[in-house]
Parts: sequence; structure tokens; C-alpha cells
Amino acid sequence: MSAIIPNSFVGGDKGQWRVTKMHTVVGDSLPYASYVTVAEGHLSKENTTEAAWVLRGSKTHARYSTRVEVEQLNARQAPLGRVEADCARLIPICKNSEWWSMPQDERRKIFEEESGHTAISMPYLPTIARRLFHAREMGEPFDFLTWFEYSKENESFFEELLLKLRSSREWQFISREIDIHLEKVS
Amino acid sequence: MSAIIPNSFVGGDKGQWRVTKMHTVVGDSLPYASYVTVAEGHLSKENTTEAAWVLRGSKTHARYSTRVEVEQLNARQAPLGRVEADCARLIPICKNSEWWSMPQDERRKIFEEESGHTAISMPYLPTIARRLFHAREMGEPFDFLTWFEYSKENESFFEELLLKLRSSREWQFISREIDIHLEKVS
Repeated sequence: MSAIIPNSFVGGDKGQWRVTKMHTVVGDSLPYASYVTVAEGHLSKENTTEAAWVLRGSKTHARYSTRVEVEQLNARQAPLGRVEADCARLIPICKNSEWWSMPQDERRKIFEEESGHTAISMPYLPTIARRLFHAREMGEPFDFLTWFEYSKENESFFEELLLKLRSSREWQFISREIDIHLEKVS
Repeated sequence: MSAIIPNSFVGGDKGQWRVTKMHTVVGDSLPYASYVTVAEGHLSKENTTEAAWVLRGSKTHARYSTRVEVEQLNARQAPLGRVEADCARLIPICKNSEWWSMPQDERRKIFEEESGHTAISMPYLPTIARRLFHAREMGEPFDFLTWFEYSKENESFFEELLLKLRSSREWQFISREIDIHLEKVS
């Protein structure tokens, strides 16, 4: 749980996941890719022939959650790679300079006490499986790569979660967000 | 203040800083280098001919400090590169899996309420200038690269700070620490 998991998302013309929609929510867009491959490690664009883009990040430690929240999340959350999870979403995100110039206590207050990030998300677990990859200190174009897996029949349930999060105060600090809809290649 | 600053420390047989001592405080050692070059960006070992090692990190945002602590630090701290600062210390550090598996509230409590990391350090500013580079999510061998600059006459004052920090509860979670003593090449 405490070791980092380096990960790369490769957008190109083949992969395990087919892109059904790419939507720029806010900020600069990302070139279109037909497929996404999820790979362990930090791949460079040079290693990946004909990739439209390579987004790299690492699963590391929780940045805002308290012990109580971590235990609640651990008790409810589902693993990635469930057979029934035929849909995924890759949502790369940047927060703005106002967010990053705030100290920890103020970011935490907005994240949870004002926006209820964990509280809002909790009822959507374990139906939605999720993993967060950090990328900011790597100097990557996005601060976070968020990855979600669910079955097709729960798509509207997932959209409901996104709508709630995007209406929160925390989302006023989002400067770039790309919403990439994916279906598992059978 | 909110933009990240990617940085590399290159250990080799030439550079702006001459190594006067390399001491492994805990954990695996690092190969000896006679000089250290401080460079902007994330250099790869392939780009740096004849380097013994390249340690990369990024100055990012504060992880534990509250608004009050950040304001106190900003009011007291000195910039890097002062003419009189002819000594430096590069101290790469790893924390253990027990540390990283703790949620934010518990890490904060140990960092400040129990160990007084900021409170202990405050009287040593601005005599000691410091900058912290994060490297954990990059998958680098160290979690942090800490850099200090001071004048030769303040060396024992700096040693006093190190002694206090190394006696704190926080330091019980340090699994690797290399202390690299440096003098500016005139």
C-alpha cells in the first residue's frame, strides 16, 4: 500500500481500451487517440511507437484523507480489473496556481469540509472502482490522472458522481480537464 | 511560488560545489563523487557524461505547513545563491513504508505537533537558506532532496539544527539518509 506504482497511459491507434469519446471540459485539449493502453512504469514517448500521447503518473500516498476516511474508503473500494467492468474513464486534471499556492490546511478545507470530495464519492464505491495517479512533481502536463472502471449499465451513475464533483468548490480550481470515455476491447 | 521547479544534482568529477565529505547516516550508501553540479530541469544519467549519479527532484508546494507556518517561514527565509554562502549540504532522504502508509493527519501530527519540524527549524533561518525538492512520485531512489546553504562560520550552527531534527520522532521514519558536505568552487 505504501510503495509507489508508476503507470503510463498511452494514447494511440491500438490498445486494451477503445476511445468512444474525448471531451475537453476546460483548458487546452489533448490530440485525439482511438485507443488507450495502460502500462506499468513510466514510458517515454520515444519508447512508444506512433503514440499520440503518453501520460505518466504514480499511485502514491493519500494527500488529504484522514485515518477515518482512509478506513472507510478501504472498506468500500473495489479493485481494478473486474471482469464486469467493461467501461473506463481516464480524466487527466490540472489545478491552477491559486490552488497550489495555498497551504495544506486551506487545500484540505476546500477539498473535504467545503466540497465533500470523499463524502460525495463514498456512495459510488464499490460500483465505481477508482485509482488516482499523481504527476505534478514529475513535471508532467497534468497534475493528476484519474482512472475509473465500471460496467456499462452504471454509466449514468458515474455521470451523476462527475456532475456532483464538478459542481463543488474544489472544481473552481481546475484549470484543465479532459474526459476520455473508454470501452474494453473484447 | 506555485509553479514547480524541476532540478537535478549531478555527482561527478567536476562541478560548482566540491564534496568535502560524504556520510551515509542510514541505509544504502551512494557512490562517491568529488563534485556536485546543480542544474535546472530533470537531467537523465545518459545526458550527463561521466556522472557518478544524478538525483532529480522538484520544488513544489508545501505538504504539511499551515497558513500561519507558511507566512512565518516566508518572512524569515533567505534566498539561495547568497555571495557569503560558501558551504552547502545536499541531504537526500527516504522515509519508510510505515510513514507513507499513514494518512495525512497522522503524518502531520508527527511532523509538527510531535517533532516540531517547522518550530525547530525557524530560529535557523535566515542564517541557513534551504530548499526542499520532492522526488517520490517520480520513482527516484530518494523521496526528498534537501539543500542547505550557509557560510563556513555557521557550520556548527547548522550541525546543531541537524542534531535536533535527527533526534525527533519524525526521524525514526527515515530509512535512508546521505549527508553530502559541499564547498563552493571559487
